Amino acid sequence: MVRQDWRTWPTYQASALGLRNFWYPVTWSSEVGARPVGVQLLGERIVLCRDRGRAYALHDRCPHRGVPLSLGRTHFPGTVTCPYHGWTYRLDTGLMCAAITDGPDSPITGKVGVRTYPVAERLGLVWIFIGDDHAEVPPVEQDIPEELLAHRIAIGGRIQPGRRGNWRYAAENGFDEGHAKFLHRNALWAIFRRMPAWTETRIVRTTDGRWISRKWEAVHWEADFRGLGHWPPARSWPRFLQAAAARSKTPPRTDPRIAALDLPGMVSVRVPYILRVAYAHYIHYEWAVPEDAEHHRYVQLLVSFTPELLGRLWFRIRYLAYIRWVFHGQFTGQDAWMVDVMDIPPERLYRPDASVIEWRRLVEEQHRSPRH
Amino acid sequence: MVRQDWRTWPTYQASALGLRNFWYPVTWSSEVGARPVGVQLLGERIVLCRDRGRAYALHDRCPHRGVPLSLGRTHFPGTVTCPYHGWTYRLDTGLMCAAITDGPDSPITGKVGVRTYPVAERLGLVWIFIGDDHAEVPPVEQDIPEELLAHRIAIGGRIQPGRRGNWRYAAENGFDEGHAKFLHRNALWAIFRRMPAWTETRIVRTTDGRWISRKWEAVHWEADFRGLGHWPPARSWPRFLQAAAARSKTPPRTDPRIAALDLPGMVSVRVPYILRVAYAHYIHYEWAVPEDAEHHRYVQLLVSFTPELLGRLWFRIRYLAYIRWVFHGQFTGQDAWMVDVMDIPPERLYRPDASVIEWRRLVEEQHRSPRH
Amino acid sequence: MVRQDWRTWPTYQASALGLRNFWYPVTWSSEVGARPVGVQLLGERIVLCRDRGRAYALHDRCPHRGVPLSLGRTHFPGTVTCPYHGWTYRLDTGLMCAAITDGPDSPITGKVGVRTYPVAERLGLVWIFIGDDHAEVPPVEQDIPEELLAHRIAIGGRIQPGRRGNWRYAAENGFDEGHAKFLHRNALWAIFRRMPAWTETRIVRTTDGRWISRKWEAVHWEADFRGLGHWPPARSWPRFLQAAAARSKTPPRTDPRIAALDLPGMVSVRVPYILRVAYAHYIHYEWAVPEDAEHHRYVQLLVSFTPELLGRLWFRIRYLAYIRWVFHGQFTGQDAWMVDVMDIPPERLYRPDASVIEWRRLVEEQHRSPRH
Repeated sequence: MVRQDWRTWPTYQASALGLRNFWYPVTWSSEVGARPVGVQLLGERIVLCRDRGRAYALHDRCPHRGVPLSLGRTHFPGTVTCPYHGWTYRLDTGLMCAAITDGPDSPITGKVGVRTYPVAERLGLVWIFIGDDHAEVPPVEQDIPEELLAHRIAIGGRIQPGRRGNWRYAAENGFDEGHAKFLHRNALWAIFRRMPAWTETRIVRTTDGRWISRKWEAVHWEADFRGLGHWPPARSWPRFLQAAAARSKTPPRTDPRIAALDLPGMVSVRVPYILRVAYAHYIHYEWAVPEDAEHHRYVQLLVSFTPELLGRLWFRIRYLAYIRWVFHGQFTGQDAWMVDVMDIPPERLYRPDASVIEWRRLVEEQHRSPRH
Repeated sequence: MVRQDWRTWPTYQASALGLRNFWYPVTWSSEVGARPVGVQLLGERIVLCRDRGRAYALHDRCPHRGVPLSLGRTHFPGTVTCPYHGWTYRLDTGLMCAAITDGPDSPITGKVGVRTYPVAERLGLVWIFIGDDHAEVPPVEQDIPEELLAHRIAIGGRIQPGRRGNWRYAAENGFDEGHAKFLHRNALWAIFRRMPAWTETRIVRTTDGRWISRKWEAVHWEADFRGLGHWPPARSWPRFLQAAAARSKTPPRTDPRIAALDLPGMVSVRVPYILRVAYAHYIHYEWAVPEDAEHHRYVQLLVSFTPELLGRLWFRIRYLAYIRWVFHGQFTGQDAWMVDVMDIPPERLYRPDASVIEWRRLVEEQHRSPRH
Repeated sequence: MVRQDWRTWPTYQASALGLRNFWYPVTWSSEVGARPVGVQLLGERIVLCRDRGRAYALHDRCPHRGVPLSLGRTHFPGTVTCPYHGWTYRLDTGLMCAAITDGPDSPITGKVGVRTYPVAERLGLVWIFIGDDHAEVPPVEQDIPEELLAHRIAIGGRIQPGRRGNWRYAAENGFDEGHAKFLHRNALWAIFRRMPAWTETRIVRTTDGRWISRKWEAVHWEADFRGLGHWPPARSWPRFLQAAAARSKTPPRTDPRIAALDLPGMVSVRVPYILRVAYAHYIHYEWAVPEDAEHHRYVQLLVSFTPELLGRLWFRIRYLAYIRWVFHGQFTGQDAWMVDVMDIPPERLYRPDASVIEWRRLVEEQHRSPRH
């Protein structure tokens, strides 16, 4: 299992800018209004704009002089206008429908245009499909975990553009079996969770075949390392905290809608990188949406499936009061630290990296790029 | 007229660092004193220094150890000395006339030197000629609009080094017919000027053959774009402002010395990029002096030709009170914004870009580089 | 003596990242404790860590996922652990002795490791040997000036990482005969020292053959440069300062232990760049330890050889009170300025650069790289 490079996974190796032909969540629907917003996805600059309730995405470059359309404005309904010379593009087709400064009969009108991108809105998020030319566009539902669409849910979340590190580092960090119990052992989020010293894990498919999941075969809460010592070290906590921690070890009753998902393990992943971490009362989902080869847009959702209005309200309050800061802040901030400093290949993998290897295999199997 | 690259204009395409063998205005005469000043022009580092009233320009690199002479000082009249080992250069010839730390009889004295550049001072500005080796140096008057030398004038101006964007972007933006009426339509400088929706323009030569000028054949103040709407949108101004704007539409009586220039259009340009925008009472001139491939030094002058002392004084007061900030500040700041984000080629030109095309042709015709 | 490039000194030219197979002083012993410290030396990232009184140096990259070990901690005595997955390395051998998150029986344990570097501690400094593979490691004493080990000494010093400029620029600046009397002529450190206008110098070997030394054959305190004037200019000082300066010209009695070194000149240098500047009562030593091709770690020591406890105490007080700021601060800060802006080759050398040429020759002769 000791490997040094990524030649075994040629598509993965070639995908520094991301996997094309998938739908990606990009920003909150509430962030896209009549004023154009520029983003970078999979190496492409894209402008988002809303007209009469609908969001649109276009290539963010006026073909005239290369100025970003996201610096412009909507002057006529259903269009966006470049700030420089008033070239105006239809949001739906990308066709240039008026070159204002050349008059209504400008001969170039209708002869140039910019690429448009399929856009959908689900879960309060704007989703964009970044496809190859002539790629078939699947319904957005195909790239959203189905449980999120099948239930009334409450969502708390955080979107961070410009996070440093290639998206594959973020993805491997997310599904990586080994690091959580070590890197995060002192995170506030883990303070009342007992972390195992080490585990024996098998990677299994979910019944629908799309996800792979980490299944603990054996959990070792403590370990003795010959010649070194015991792990983990005893926590030098005040007595009342230790008592609280002990109480928290009673596993809470899992939400029946989460239980019904029948997940083989707590953590699962699917292409193009959707991570799902199931807790008893909510599920964490995350995406590392590629921006360029060195940056990604980190999208974190925490989802409650409780059907009661009051329960959903209580979940929202708890999310904003502490989960957002403790879990979607300090905890995943430790991951951001590693994703930033990580530097592979070369690499040397070890037994728990079966998770990483299976993830790479999943990409080789389920990517949607043309075969070379 | 749809073009994608610049192969049609080979000299222009090859001139990322600027057109050589021209005189360029660099800084105010008052900025050059006994203390050396370093600037970058057409990719070359140059040090400016004044001795007994005269300004000199030398290559800003001591050949000994590569230290910039602009970090040094004048220790002996007519020389500049490198701060590191005291190598001392004659300002007039560039010859090293003393290696102080090797004594008066140092064998290297007189055997090395740095390149000098022709310098002239006109209009309160220091002009430098950046020529090819063995290029003939024309009198500086040849590269200064003659009306500036023929009259008693008053000047207000602004010089900004390190402006982002290649000099050709700045030049094309300056003479570009299309953008002013759109990009600048809400600039303070334009607040009382009525901007047309679009114009039909012809590019014509001035009688001396050196300038090309944009001549409006037809001006369309308003336009209806089918399926989109009317342009420009009505201004929602308070009534008194609208009245003021209406009053301002009465064209002011043009200064007779400006009228005598008999310019075919308001805006003209000549190589190496001198822009001239004639208003009724003054003329705006600008240069985009290349620094490197990504930056230029932006030189703006506003010139009054009034012969009366009081008129010149009044012009200076108005310049410092608001024109400097409103025209040479916010208005051309909008240009700086576009020059920074512009990114061509590739490009798609449209009818008003006849101005840009004729400018490029002018460069191909009037540049002074050796033919390849 | 006019040369333009460095082809005459092929090893020197190829040594942008430093001379390998030498011991380098890196940091103060007091800066290395149980918490790992990351440094860069000769292009390599190294982590320093202390265990039971002894300092160790390892390659600062966990082979698993490329994370710097200097971000980790010591969890078990004699080891350092990567913060990401708990891979734990023996400080003495570099061998990975536990992959905590894979349990005590992890099959990879003992099968990977990181490079270790020889470490020694002398003079209150941590020294690291950066060698080629299989290079023989000489005792650290071989790379420390012997007088520093033979006497009871007092040390004041300053270590500055990340100083800009290639280490060879710093080295050449240090031993360069020409610049001191010019660049530093107005430094506070030189205020009571009379600087010659120029000197005639010969470069001589010390008796042990390891050092070369600048020996003044003739000193010219003043000079007249034909057509330019007199050098140095008269100092326009108040009378009492001039009197003090005159008094200071009486050469102080040299410390007998410094006199016993029998140095042919005040300034000497040896590979891999140890500069020794002998004053009457103390000696300045400096190293420019290469970090990467553009940066070096600047190590300055000022050493008193006085055997009396009180004398050593007085030296420490003076060092901290002003020498540290005036000599190891402002004075060598002028050097840092030149080392930063210097830009060679090409270069044109002059007579005093015999010092630079002899230094380059010394490197060609005494470097320890395999012959090509």
